[in-house]
Amino acid sequence: MDPDTLSKAFVEHYYSTFDTNRAGLANLYQESSMLTFEGQKIQGSQNIVNKLTSLPFQQCKHTITTNDCQPSGPAGGMLVFVSGNLQLAGEQHALKFSQMFHLMPTPQGSFYVYNDIFRLNYA
Amino acid sequence: MDPDTLSKAFVEHYYSTFDTNRAGLANLYQESSMLTFEGQKIQGSQNIVNKLTSLPFQQCKHTITTNDCQPSGPAGGMLVFVSGNLQLAGEQHALKFSQMFHLMPTPQGSFYVYNDIFRLNYA
Repeated sequence: MDPDTLSKAFVEHYYSTFDTNRAGLANLYQESSMLTFEGQKIQGSQNIVNKLTSLPFQQCKHTITTNDCQPSGPAGGMLVFVSGNLQLAGEQHALKFSQMFHLMPTPQGSFYVYNDIFRLNYA
Repeated sequence: MDPDTLSKAFVEHYYSTFDTNRAGLANLYQESSMLTFEGQKIQGSQNIVNKLTSLPFQQCKHTITTNDCQPSGPAGGMLVFVSGNLQLAGEQHALKFSQMFHLMPTPQGSFYVYNDIFRLNYA
């Protein structure tokens, strides 16, 4: 699978899982994984999912505006850079966000999220 | 130097160089470096600086809103994630942007930009 196709497939999977079954994101992270969420640093799959599932909204819908990717070096990783809109249930206006992921290969030929940095882009 | 301090120093150096002497950014890239600028992929220090110096504005001023960083893995790299405003000379409104850098160590103990992804965040 070429990097652009892989990046697109990852992004669709990540945000559809986020919007329908946030706890299911645990499978995408490992113990070494890092999330920086609005400046707060969190490490490890369980801690990351605890953070994501405790965000103060129940239903949300991500819409992707841009999706860029680049190989990150000889270890076979891939950088995925996303911008888009986040609509929260009951809110009139969508929030704009930017997010980057560093995907690293697993021995099984799949990928996991090693780095994840999320920021809202305030108007 | 701890990662947050290094990230802050890099970001200040990068954007002050961009705003005062864009051609001087060549020193921060190498032949393997990649830039994705608004979806356009460019590789190599000279090609990257040719792109940046040919952007259709002369004077600009970046203002940084957020700056996050994480170590990118055992190779000693660092991911730097930035959001901010870009004011172009003669324009009434600043543009919002997001940008990520993957810094890799050099044998001399410094860092160069291996990955660079830039996007304007349209309102």
